[in-house]
Amino acid sequence: MAQVRNKQVVLRDYVTGSPKESDMNMVEGTIELKLPEGSNDVLLKNLYLSCDPYMRFLMTKMETIDAFQTYTPGSPLTGYGVSKVLESGDPKFKKGDLVWGITKWEEFSLIPSSLIHFKIDHTDVPLSYYTGILGMPGVTAYGGFFEIGSPKKGENVFVSAASGAVGQLVGQFAKLTGCYVVGSAGSKEKVDLLKNKLGFDEAFNYKEESDLNATLKRYFPEGIDIYFENVGGKTLDAVLQNMRLQGRIPVCGMVSQYNLTQHEGVTNLSNLIFKQLRMEGFIVTKFYHLYPKFLEFLLPHIREGNVVYVEDIVEGLENGPKALVGLYNGRNVGKQVVVVTRD
Amino acid sequence: MAQVRNKQVVLRDYVTGSPKESDMNMVEGTIELKLPEGSNDVLLKNLYLSCDPYMRFLMTKMETIDAFQTYTPGSPLTGYGVSKVLESGDPKFKKGDLVWGITKWEEFSLIPSSLIHFKIDHTDVPLSYYTGILGMPGVTAYGGFFEIGSPKKGENVFVSAASGAVGQLVGQFAKLTGCYVVGSAGSKEKVDLLKNKLGFDEAFNYKEESDLNATLKRYFPEGIDIYFENVGGKTLDAVLQNMRLQGRIPVCGMVSQYNLTQHEGVTNLSNLIFKQLRMEGFIVTKFYHLYPKFLEFLLPHIREGNVVYVEDIVEGLENGPKALVGLYNGRNVGKQVVVVTRD
Repeated sequence: MAQVRNKQVVLRDYVTGSPKESDMNMVEGTIELKLPEGSNDVLLKNLYLSCDPYMRFLMTKMETIDAFQTYTPGSPLTGYGVSKVLESGDPKFKKGDLVWGITKWEEFSLIPSSLIHFKIDHTDVPLSYYTGILGMPGVTAYGGFFEIGSPKKGENVFVSAASGAVGQLVGQFAKLTGCYVVGSAGSKEKVDLLKNKLGFDEAFNYKEESDLNATLKRYFPEGIDIYFENVGGKTLDAVLQNMRLQGRIPVCGMVSQYNLTQHEGVTNLSNLIFKQLRMEGFIVTKFYHLYPKFLEFLLPHIREGNVVYVEDIVEGLENGPKALVGLYNGRNVGKQVVVVTRD
Repeated sequence: MAQVRNKQVVLRDYVTGSPKESDMNMVEGTIELKLPEGSNDVLLKNLYLSCDPYMRFLMTKMETIDAFQTYTPGSPLTGYGVSKVLESGDPKFKKGDLVWGITKWEEFSLIPSSLIHFKIDHTDVPLSYYTGILGMPGVTAYGGFFEIGSPKKGENVFVSAASGAVGQLVGQFAKLTGCYVVGSAGSKEKVDLLKNKLGFDEAFNYKEESDLNATLKRYFPEGIDIYFENVGGKTLDAVLQNMRLQGRIPVCGMVSQYNLTQHEGVTNLSNLIFKQLRMEGFIVTKFYHLYPKFLEFLLPHIREGNVVYVEDIVEGLENGPKALVGLYNGRNVGKQVVVVTRD
């Protein structure tokens, strides 16, 4: 069988500080579209690739963190994606299946089937949703908010990076639960989106607030019960001063810190004691066992339009590096997706 | 009935920075040793007063924190103590009862009976223990370690301020659970105590360690499962780098920060995410419902000598201010108690 072209996005070298497009190279490899004899792997055609904040970590040369393996300079990035199975050495998958999980930033990938997280059974919704609302960010929002946040009707919820892939869902889940929810984001466009399209009660542009403590006091005169943490640093510090007794802080991300060589210091942690707060970090795999329940909850809401999802879609693998880098500048509006091909 | 002398320790004015003896005055008031007509209060003779780190907060002029009320300049300090009931307007207590709870820093106190936390039923152990191992610090260690820490046999436990009122118990509870436990303290004498008397596997003097991260790596090559947090600041920052996956951090105190106008910044909180850590602050009242179970667990261990308790006892209310101030310099060795009178 003939080899075909396989465009790839390759890490040039480990990154310090903010990632730039030039930290990645487009290369044109080739791949034989056939599973090697006796292989248990799967051969995938990649359709949609997901740009996610955690990818920044994998670009850094560092001591191994148990949960992650860093990228290798000269090799393609890896990340979440939606793919079509071309050939499978694992009986759990067959040609034509649509799947989501970890794949590589390239047109075609040969990967161990264990990297596939779920088969896609529902295709009456956009396939790209499986990089977002119905994929990793969706399960993250669902598990982090409902399982770790333990929300109760009438509670006050604050979400940072609120128009992002996860934040926009947390806000909508909070409204479905009968909470008051305020989101912060980094532009007027995003703030408008939060208030007018995503149903947040209030939203503000953190870049225009000189005293976040005062801002939060204004939006939460009675304090915050749940802070869904996506950004860390100064925002967390201001939030700690405004939490209510027995508040909860699901720690999903700290994206404001990822490009800093020295992270900002958080000085208000003693609030944890007097206010009896719980801060809990998590990674999404902790909640994968809830995926069927999650779909059962969310699919009807999507179909009925109770929950909406904002995507920022770029076309073409060659635009992937720019899209990924944009994530750390807040250039994306909503979930950042890269289309490799639509079928 | 005649009035009697009532020596008191009175806050002179709100405190900034480290408290000094001169921030408190000894005054000699008088009190009538008789309950006012129709009062529901209790008249107490104070026996033992407890010096506890949280008292520093009540000396600061600040916005009300829900759980606490600050001291009033010109009035006696309040704090935990062991007292004898002289007269009671509440049928739950009667003359001669021994009780522990919140009282005032004076010889005799007229207080609402709701400030009494528990009646003392077991007097075959030293009465002073009800300011420590059998009082607030004991319940704090028990609830914080067992309920929030959720220890399992074989896990690795680190305790800061380990020879203090709470820390010395956490270490012993950890050993009873079959954990490996290391404590940090601020002098050679305390380190010896931890290793030779309190049964810690290892202990170190944090003042002699220039690189806490390296120190912790040495004592915990496989990482820390439970960090019982008493000090905050730099120690917490180093611990976060050395926690294991799914570790727990009961946050009991952050005494290294209490005298600082600007708290030290903690920069390693993103470890919460990748390692899926839980940090949870608490105050002791959360665990008061466990007090009977706690006594049932601990009294036999005390009687059989399986659990020991180190107290630092000063005689006389007039030595109270010095003892209290010493707590923030680490001058005390073990639980700091002030004897007002022994009977």
